[in-house]
Parts: sequence; structure tokens; C-alpha cells
Amino acid sequence: MSDPEELEVVGVGNALVDVLSHEDDALVTKLGLERGVMTMVDHEAVERVYAAQGPTVEVSGGSAANTIAGLASFGAAAGFIGKVGPDEFGRVFAHDLEALGVRFGATSSNGSGPTGRCHIIVTPDAERTMCTFLGVASDLQPDDVDEALVARAQVTYLEGYLFDQPAAKHAFRQAAAVAHRSGRRVALTLSDPFCVHRHRDEFLDLVEHAVEVLFANEEEICALYDFDDFDDALQRVRRHTDVAALTRGKRGSVVVAGDEVHVIDAVPVDRLVDTTGAGDQYAAGFLYGLTHGRDLVTCGRLGSLAAAEAVGHLGPRPETSLRALAAPLLG
Amino acid sequence: MSDPEELEVVGVGNALVDVLSHEDDALVTKLGLERGVMTMVDHEAVERVYAAQGPTVEVSGGSAANTIAGLASFGAAAGFIGKVGPDEFGRVFAHDLEALGVRFGATSSNGSGPTGRCHIIVTPDAERTMCTFLGVASDLQPDDVDEALVARAQVTYLEGYLFDQPAAKHAFRQAAAVAHRSGRRVALTLSDPFCVHRHRDEFLDLVEHAVEVLFANEEEICALYDFDDFDDALQRVRRHTDVAALTRGKRGSVVVAGDEVHVIDAVPVDRLVDTTGAGDQYAAGFLYGLTHGRDLVTCGRLGSLAAAEAVGHLGPRPETSLRALAAPLLG
Repeated sequence: MSDPEELEVVGVGNALVDVLSHEDDALVTKLGLERGVMTMVDHEAVERVYAAQGPTVEVSGGSAANTIAGLASFGAAAGFIGKVGPDEFGRVFAHDLEALGVRFGATSSNGSGPTGRCHIIVTPDAERTMCTFLGVASDLQPDDVDEALVARAQVTYLEGYLFDQPAAKHAFRQAAAVAHRSGRRVALTLSDPFCVHRHRDEFLDLVEHAVEVLFANEEEICALYDFDDFDDALQRVRRHTDVAALTRGKRGSVVVAGDEVHVIDAVPVDRLVDTTGAGDQYAAGFLYGLTHGRDLVTCGRLGSLAAAEAVGHLGPRPETSLRALAAPLLG
Repeated sequence: MSDPEELEVVGVGNALVDVLSHEDDALVTKLGLERGVMTMVDHEAVERVYAAQGPTVEVSGGSAANTIAGLASFGAAAGFIGKVGPDEFGRVFAHDLEALGVRFGATSSNGSGPTGRCHIIVTPDAERTMCTFLGVASDLQPDDVDEALVARAQVTYLEGYLFDQPAAKHAFRQAAAVAHRSGRRVALTLSDPFCVHRHRDEFLDLVEHAVEVLFANEEEICALYDFDDFDDALQRVRRHTDVAALTRGKRGSVVVAGDEVHVIDAVPVDRLVDTTGAGDQYAAGFLYGLTHGRDLVTCGRLGSLAAAEAVGHLGPRPETSLRALAAPLLG
């Protein structure tokens, strides 16, 4: 990593391979899973889910990593820090980032554990219910944060899921500190309403003091402030971060920045297949705009465009060039 | 495997995981690959292909295994014999058959090698160009043939690709011998024109003396008899096997059995995405019909139907229930 090149965004997150299948709603119920959310499970529990799934498709995943893949698809120079094991899934994960030109700053651990997996059940309404076995991803340490990589990036993008592991949380804080020390911005995605509930006080502190750009969906931002009403949460968050991009599924998104409030439409989708990665790709589009000096409305529209691409197929990462898709918006 | 249940079909073949990506034609040329065919390569060469691929999707593959998965999707009781390694890809392969209720008779080898991979480049015309690193699949031995499983199946389905490895060839012959000894039928797919060229004399001998049902596409059957003209090859093969199902891509198929010759239309496809698995799924439909006492025209139509499903999406195995899709034909 001696390349002194400037990066738009570096992501820090759980390096996971997604194991996806289409299933009936009955399976979600039978497995006792919470529809639409991510449940962190141990090895035994993930094997139980796997055994209940029909034939699966394996693709690289991980929330922040998906966003980084999306940014690369827009043409951004991007990096990722996360931990994979010395196995096939680890090689798949690394290959799929490197194939996009992403600087992959994760260390491949030797024998300390398997690459993490996210088993995803996609129901007929295209909702995704996730079960994650972190494997060696949970072993991300502050030392794994490549400081030079972080210092070179305009934005360091962190996923809230990291907070579920103490060491990864420290790595997260370490990355944020390096970014700020280098005069860079920190972006955070709240990841999941249950994740927010688990770490509410710490997230509140982060959002107020250590995050310049916040991504959250409606449920997550309400969970953060313990409000039932989205508008109340919106009024609160605008005082706490420079920019907040709040997604609302098919109702689009609201972008707030101080006095500015922009309501952005969702991009219509011909055929809704799988919502996995919709939020991740929204963040990719938004961050692409932000790091290229676009106004917030364009940032939001780029987010909507990338999210619409993601939900039209199985899996969380773009299947077509986002750069080509966004050409009319980028001019 | 003490279950005395009767199976419709047991497949014997290379257990592979497919690693697929959409690429431009230029990449096929740059890699020096033969468009539309399967090239067997060593580990170093497959890594070179992988490094040149963009982000990939991983799904279970293997020609005969794809056919068995298709049969299970039709609702048939089916089994498979092949060899995987003790790694993620091996677990993926086994999971995806077991999830369909397929009896998986392969031994998982310990430490003798990685699970085989087939790297597939899908070009914009939906043609697939394949590079296979067999890994431990090449280690299939006569002893791995579960004789009880073979004896229980109405049809033993063998892929020609097995002939590329001496031990696997013996396993192939062993399975055919057990099937005949049990009063069962043997089906063979010629797999690939280059595979036929490599083993022409042996395949000719097999087709004349040890195969009751033959699957081949136009190029393969012409290669077998060293004819340029499909009709000449057709006249020859009808004297050599009980039933031959000869596929011709979008022109459908011709089924010959003694004096009978049936021309079967292809099922129109809305959007041709990836031809990977088209022949494998044709065989699945055909064998489903054959083992359920259907006439040869219906067998061919079931084949066309299954092939049409396969080419409408990325990857070689059905994404929707072939049983449901075939309901109008099955009555």
C-alpha cells in the first residue's frame, strides 16, 4: 500500500459471503427469525438455517463492503478493511473486491477461523431476512486498520454492525480517529434497528461527536432517538451531524443538512426481486456524489438509482455498471 | 444408504462449483480460450482465469449433477455420485443436492485436494466458455461408486467429461456394469465436442455396446462419427442406441429410437441470459419423461421446457420448480 493515490472512500466492516435462497414466509417463521432484520448467530445456529435453505447462490456481501463495491462500480477509487479466513469464501470475497480495483486492506488470517457468512432468506415480497455467522470477521482488531489507507480517503465509511464485537468496535473507533486526525470525514450507517437498540448510547455519542455523514433507514433513525415518529427523529438528527441521508424504502429518502431538507423520490423498479443491499447501494450512490462535489439532491438521486439496480436482482452488489447507469445524472 | 427406495436416476459425474461472470468477448480471446467449449486446466491456469474475471457468482454445477438437480426439481427421486473436498465449495455442492432431496453418494475426501471449480465466462450473446480445474473430482475411483445406489436407479446417467481422468473412467465403466447387472439402463451425455475428440474410439464402443440412452448436441454427435452433416450422424446413431436425444440449440432437438424420428421445437425464451446448463436441463426433462413412461415426444418437450428455464438466468440449475412449470405437459 505504498501507492500515495487519493481514495474517495475506504470502508471498514464485516467481510462476509452471502448465501442466498428464495423461500416461503413459512420458513422464516419456522426458523424463529425476525423478518427483515439481521440476527447474529453462532456456528450451530447458522448451520441449522443452512440445512433448512433450499439450493443457494453464493456472492460476496457485507454491508460496508457492498457499498465499496458500489462505489467502485461508479468508478470511484475505494478501499476496504475487513477480515477473511484462509478458505474459499475468503478468496471469493477478496477476489470480488480486487476485480473491481478496490484496495483490500484486510489481513487474511491463518487458521484463526472461517470467513463469515450471511445466510439470507428472500421471501416472495423481496424482503430479506438475514442470519450472520461472523467467523473471523469478528476478530477485526484496531491493529488491522491500515492507517495509511484511511488517511488517504476523503471519507471513511463505517458499518454499525461492527459494534457487535468489542475488538471490532475498537477498530471502528481507531479508524474514525485516524480519519479525523487526517482532516477527513467519517460516515456511519446504523445498519439495522436491532443493532441500534443494542448500542444506542454509544451510537448517539458517535453521531453527535464523531460522524459527519449518517445513513439510516426510517426504523433505525427512530430507534436511535427512541421516537415513534420519523419527522421527530429527522428534526433531532439534523442538529447532530453535518449530513444525514434517511432512506424510506419505496418512498425514497430524505436528506438533511443543517437548514436544508431534501425529499428524494425512489427510482421505480420494474421487478422487485430482492431488497438485499438496497441500503448499501443507496450509500454508494450518495457517497459517490458527495465525494465528487455534487449537491445533496444529486447525491440522493444517485443513491436511489443504485438502490433500484440492487433490488432488481438476487444479491447485494451491482450486476451492471453504476457509472453507465448514472451517466444521465452525472452529465 | 439402507433405504430400499427405488430411484428414477442416479448421476455420476464431476462435482464442481461454478464461478460465473458476465464478460466481453475480448476477455475470452485474451485468455486464449475456445469460445463455447470446456477447457480442462491446471490450478495455475484456473487462477489466471479467475484473476481476469470481474466479480463472480458461485453456484453448484457439474454437468451430471445439474441434470440430477433438474430431475429433483421435477419431483424425481434421484441420486448423485461424485467427489468433493473438505472445504466450503464441497459443502456448498453437497448442500445444494441434499436441499433438493438428492441422495448424495460421494465421499468427502479428507485433505486429498480442493473441490473442483468450473470458471464460466458468459459473453453478451449468452454463450458460456468454461475452464475447469477438477481438483479432487478427478480422484473419483471405482470404489466410490455406491453399487446399492446404482442398482436402485432405473437409469444411471454418466457424463462424458469423466473420461478425461483414467480413474474416473474406470468408475464410469464400473457404474455402467453395475447398472446392467441390475437390469437397469445406462444413459450417457457426450458433454463437449472436444471431449468427444479426445475419447472418440472409446465413446463409439460405449455407444454401440453399453449405452441405451444417448444425449448429444449437434457438434458432439458429428464429432463422434466424424461427419460434417448432422443427418448422416443421426442415421448412424439410430442403429447404435435404443434412444438418442440430439439437441440443436434454438432449433430444438431430434429424438431417434429405431424407426422413430421426432423433431421437437425449442421452447421460446423471453430473454436469453446464459446458456450454461441448457443441455444438462434438457437431459433432466427428457429423463424425467422417460422414467415416467411418457412417449418420446413428451420426453423431448419436457427437455425443451427445462432447457428454456435454464437459459433465462445465470447459472446451470433451475431457479423455479420444473414440476410446476411442466404441469401443463404432465397433466
